[in-house]
Amino acid sequence: MLNFEYQNPVHIIFGRDTIARLNDLIDAEKKVMVVYGGGSIKRNGVYDQVVKALAGRSVVEFGGIEPNPQFATCMKAVKQAQESGVDFLLAVGGGSVLDATKFIAAAMVYEGADPWDILRTHGQEVTSAIPMGTVLTLPATGSEMNANSVISRAETEEKLHFTSSAVYPEFSIMDPQTIASLPENQIRNGIVDAFVHVVEQSITYEVNTPLQDRQAMAVLATLVQVAPDLMAGSKDYDLLANFMWAATHALNGVISCGVVEDWSIHMIGHELTAFYGVAHAESLAIVLPGVWERCFEKKKEKLANLAEALWGVTSGSVDDKAQAAIEKTEAFFHAIKMPTRLGDYGVKAADLDKLKARFNERGLTYGEQGDLGPEACGEIVAGRL
Amino acid sequence: MLNFEYQNPVHIIFGRDTIARLNDLIDAEKKVMVVYGGGSIKRNGVYDQVVKALAGRSVVEFGGIEPNPQFATCMKAVKQAQESGVDFLLAVGGGSVLDATKFIAAAMVYEGADPWDILRTHGQEVTSAIPMGTVLTLPATGSEMNANSVISRAETEEKLHFTSSAVYPEFSIMDPQTIASLPENQIRNGIVDAFVHVVEQSITYEVNTPLQDRQAMAVLATLVQVAPDLMAGSKDYDLLANFMWAATHALNGVISCGVVEDWSIHMIGHELTAFYGVAHAESLAIVLPGVWERCFEKKKEKLANLAEALWGVTSGSVDDKAQAAIEKTEAFFHAIKMPTRLGDYGVKAADLDKLKARFNERGLTYGEQGDLGPEACGEIVAGRL
Repeated sequence: MLNFEYQNPVHIIFGRDTIARLNDLIDAEKKVMVVYGGGSIKRNGVYDQVVKALAGRSVVEFGGIEPNPQFATCMKAVKQAQESGVDFLLAVGGGSVLDATKFIAAAMVYEGADPWDILRTHGQEVTSAIPMGTVLTLPATGSEMNANSVISRAETEEKLHFTSSAVYPEFSIMDPQTIASLPENQIRNGIVDAFVHVVEQSITYEVNTPLQDRQAMAVLATLVQVAPDLMAGSKDYDLLANFMWAATHALNGVISCGVVEDWSIHMIGHELTAFYGVAHAESLAIVLPGVWERCFEKKKEKLANLAEALWGVTSGSVDDKAQAAIEKTEAFFHAIKMPTRLGDYGVKAADLDKLKARFNERGLTYGEQGDLGPEACGEIVAGRL
Repeated sequence: MLNFEYQNPVHIIFGRDTIARLNDLIDAEKKVMVVYGGGSIKRNGVYDQVVKALAGRSVVEFGGIEPNPQFATCMKAVKQAQESGVDFLLAVGGGSVLDATKFIAAAMVYEGADPWDILRTHGQEVTSAIPMGTVLTLPATGSEMNANSVISRAETEEKLHFTSSAVYPEFSIMDPQTIASLPENQIRNGIVDAFVHVVEQSITYEVNTPLQDRQAMAVLATLVQVAPDLMAGSKDYDLLANFMWAATHALNGVISCGVVEDWSIHMIGHELTAFYGVAHAESLAIVLPGVWERCFEKKKEKLANLAEALWGVTSGSVDDKAQAAIEKTEAFFHAIKMPTRLGDYGVKAADLDKLKARFNERGLTYGEQGDLGPEACGEIVAGRL
């Protein structure tokens, strides 16, 4: 096991009819900005519950956060919040709204010249932020219980992440009833996003962490268990609750304690979203088989474990099982209607030039041992057309 | 899934050579009291590492905390700490030292007339405490990452617990190297204590929590996996690390989120320790089969799951599997040299009168549905002679 540190201060309030708790959770004297997305919270009743819980308080609103939240939009929110004297941010939505709100919280008090540097330095320069809370309405990113945020910038076709303990939500309210109205593609995306979070923290190489390996499999097995009924449209409360809580555990820091991580699927996937507009989860489903095949030798022990523990593969060599893990994972994505090829979105070989140029220009290396260089990243994507 | 809240602010620093981090973790201006037990930390080098890390600071010491820490001893520490102007407590030891330090931290600022009331009200009256940190040297209780404490009082033969968010450690340092010198009986006790913590939070009745069930089994399976090599005396670093981290996860609040809990094994066991002096883990191993047999109908679904997931029992009815779970768990205890009968400690039927009188006098009821009354508790213990 590797040395590690773990601390996660987020106060989770989980269950039925918990949005009313906002009234206790936010100091009465705070000036609150409610940040939300495209308006689904106004259609599903969540907005009304929030308004009711905050009745009589000083509240301003900022709607219109996009999927893959845009830097420019966030900066508009920063300006409005500063002008209004906001000192508490309440994110109401999914990962995009939560991530945007984390960035707004940090940017409001950022002392550097250009807030984009928060992303460019991946949060290293963030020392404080406006306090925030969340009401989660879409299980996927784990943003409700971590200190991560990913922001996009359309004009430069960039999508970058930052992490800072300053942007842990003070609290996150998770009422599974709020996700009953999600459309199928968002459920599918949430399952895949959470699934890939887990494997980035577990399908690497062995450093003798049997508890963490089992904790990772616990999350994956639960996602695979709930997927068919969710995709069939069931709104069973426990089903929704189990999905929601599993997605949180996919990225709240527990399963990564003491293990080797590899975020190359995400890093390459972010570029696909930045250039070709595929949704985050779609990009992950495209890249995953390519990274696993490319890094087969390094990952095959853990892939074989995955095949056994998750997919019930009991026979064959380590190589056979590892290959089966790749095939069965891709088949699982297909079973929940998730494409796994870039060509499924109309992208052609000629379109990859600027992507490859980006990899080369940045010279970044990924992989758990830093051995996926620019050329390898380009080849992985080219193999997923 | 039941509604729940979860928040655990403890900062874990886990790994090799981490005790030196004390210097960063405690503010330089704090007056520190180092609290420890019978002196094993002076023999195994931990004390020297702590002294070195705190060199140049204002430090006082309080040694001599007993297993099943005594109220009278804790009150001596409270007096010394108050007289010395201590404003930070550093617990260095196992669960007894950590639990004692939590009580000292709360008692130092307790405003009621009698600090024993902290225990009598199970922490309801605790609103603040002196800040504390821990250096853990014995995996067992999970006290390093929770807000629980159990204190005993010899003169009244009482052993009571309290819980308060005011006594979460600010940090806990966990260096697996510190547990290499543990004697066999403490390893055995730690395994059983952690094991029973998990089952008190999982072997109840089904409320549709597949993730938490799997997380619980992840901890149990890891404990069962590491037990033989630990008992054989292996000092392999990863083995020690996996034991240590599993024991923390047995009682840090994660696996109890949204599930039905039943702490009857602990509650009955505390009385056995209070009256007959059996160690905490020894009391749990005695009581567990009795509670499971008494509550067979309520617990049999979860017991059958335990039989399948942990003990590999694949055939038979639910009742058969549940019965096998009880037998195989008791056999596991025996395999690690843990007795499971009160008679093994020389206690006889006639000795049970005062225990039964205590149950009757208190009129407490245990069990996940409050259906284990005083009479049932007496019968359970009588069945374990």
